[in-house]
Amino acid sequence: MKPAPRLAKAFKGKRVLITGGLGFIGSNLTRSLVKLGAKVTILDSLIPEYGGNRRNLRGLERKVSLNLSDVRDRHSLPEFLRGQHYLFNLAGQTSHMDSMSDPETDLEINCRAQLTLLEACRKHNTGLRIVFASTRQIYGRPDYLPVDEKHPLRPVDVNGINKLAGEEYHILYSKVHGIRSTVLRLTNTIGPRMRVKDARQTFVGVWIRDILQGKPIEVWGGEQRRDFTYVDDAVEALLLSASMPEAVGGIFNLGGVGQVSLRELAKTLVEVAGQGTFQIRTFPSDRKKIDIGDFYSDCRLIESALGWKPRTSIRQALAKTVAYYRKELPYYL
Amino acid sequence: MKPAPRLAKAFKGKRVLITGGLGFIGSNLTRSLVKLGAKVTILDSLIPEYGGNRRNLRGLERKVSLNLSDVRDRHSLPEFLRGQHYLFNLAGQTSHMDSMSDPETDLEINCRAQLTLLEACRKHNTGLRIVFASTRQIYGRPDYLPVDEKHPLRPVDVNGINKLAGEEYHILYSKVHGIRSTVLRLTNTIGPRMRVKDARQTFVGVWIRDILQGKPIEVWGGEQRRDFTYVDDAVEALLLSASMPEAVGGIFNLGGVGQVSLRELAKTLVEVAGQGTFQIRTFPSDRKKIDIGDFYSDCRLIESALGWKPRTSIRQALAKTVAYYRKELPYYL
Repeated sequence: MKPAPRLAKAFKGKRVLITGGLGFIGSNLTRSLVKLGAKVTILDSLIPEYGGNRRNLRGLERKVSLNLSDVRDRHSLPEFLRGQHYLFNLAGQTSHMDSMSDPETDLEINCRAQLTLLEACRKHNTGLRIVFASTRQIYGRPDYLPVDEKHPLRPVDVNGINKLAGEEYHILYSKVHGIRSTVLRLTNTIGPRMRVKDARQTFVGVWIRDILQGKPIEVWGGEQRRDFTYVDDAVEALLLSASMPEAVGGIFNLGGVGQVSLRELAKTLVEVAGQGTFQIRTFPSDRKKIDIGDFYSDCRLIESALGWKPRTSIRQALAKTVAYYRKELPYYL
Repeated sequence: MKPAPRLAKAFKGKRVLITGGLGFIGSNLTRSLVKLGAKVTILDSLIPEYGGNRRNLRGLERKVSLNLSDVRDRHSLPEFLRGQHYLFNLAGQTSHMDSMSDPETDLEINCRAQLTLLEACRKHNTGLRIVFASTRQIYGRPDYLPVDEKHPLRPVDVNGINKLAGEEYHILYSKVHGIRSTVLRLTNTIGPRMRVKDARQTFVGVWIRDILQGKPIEVWGGEQRRDFTYVDDAVEALLLSASMPEAVGGIFNLGGVGQVSLRELAKTLVEVAGQGTFQIRTFPSDRKKIDIGDFYSDCRLIESALGWKPRTSIRQALAKTVAYYRKELPYYL
């Protein structure tokens, strides 16, 4: 079966819970699920430093059930979980710098709350299907490139340590308690509805904001090579992971079409936007300590298991994202 | 310099904090440190299900400073940490089964409290030297034997996931914040002062209790091969790790002299004790899910880095342990 009919079959009329559903990836996922005919419930805390933004749901306000709630708050979890067919577990603290300055908050969200959520599933809904959004940050500085799933795990910041624990809880509960989970290790994801206010989610957001506001882009370093997943591709991977039995218990890298240096990325962005300039800046020492240098993913495992691969080039991804923020920037500042 | 004079130089007159100091390894370590002339402060919660036992400090009551306190309680940490030269961070929830039935308590102790402690060090005493007791449980089912430090980390229970996070926090704070830490991955440690009341610490404790009480030993499975570290050897590794600059930022396996099947171990124990019998029992299904099969460590890395290797044979270790509990058993039931 082709992806589109398979997904319609999997999600039509099904109840889907999305933690972090007002965020960048969560809201794009919500849009796809609504189109597929799913009944979506969103949990989001709308903490100002995180990715949630009411604007992300524009036009869907009456088509989804929105609950302002934080994954750390355990008391309403049983009610949220009962009767759901799918859980996309996307809520998280994503800033590497914040995880170093306030490590215990990162632990509460990315580690403790994940275990609490899985315990609640064990008690109230062992039948639901979970996809957990993890991060390439858990690999640390690569021994080799591209990085596949067998690469040693050596997180270089508190966020990476906690996300690693978070994914291990999911896989353990899948194996031991039969709560079918899949872990996706996302790399740099970009696209409409990403945070552009600051670099907490991705520096590309700040770049696009700056270029549209007529400021020069600041490129830290510039020689680091990275890959980028366009958000629609990431959403497709989430949907396939939730719906294909081959994904149960699996851990898969996502990745992008090719990879570029940050200098090349900035150059492409300026070309695509038809405006702006960039300047190369030297890393501050505290950032350098937890920077991982070059990183790009080998995502052939998910291709062979689920048939997913990234389709959107970096240039296309930037063009679509710039087009979105040309209209929408005021709602994201 | 030979170990003994080197250790005396490192610890004489120095202030040492030991979390879990009333426990099995902590109390044996305390005895060595007192002999070396250190000023030892112990934190221990004496939670009945854990390893702490006042009897473990018999004869040292006036030579160490004992504080009943739990590592989860953060408020007194600054006061405990100030002025300390060394921290042996041994407090932990050790039961694999308890970590599955009550995962959040395991997380609070083995994960959250560790991060809180390191944050307190960052704020109040960046100069102290830390040794953290981790566990071979983080490797999961071995791909190869003996297991060295490069083996993939695949914890098979919540305890293993949380201990892994705990050791990663220590290494991260060592690298990024300069709080010099060493991680030791302990394998099965046995000796005087271990818990014998139940199998929460080690099943060997229960075996020795049963044999001294005239009951047949129950051997679950029997063919699994394991190595065993005698507690005096483990204590020496802790002391060397804390005092040698070569250990900073390091992660080292401990191990034992050789390895045996559990059936052979039971046979040796019966011989050494000069009494008793054993019977082979089949694993219950819930235990089987998180059992890791054969496991023994390759501990050559710590031998090459710090000159440590295990010296006590399994037979000697069992003999010394049985001798201790012949007199002391009533205080451990």
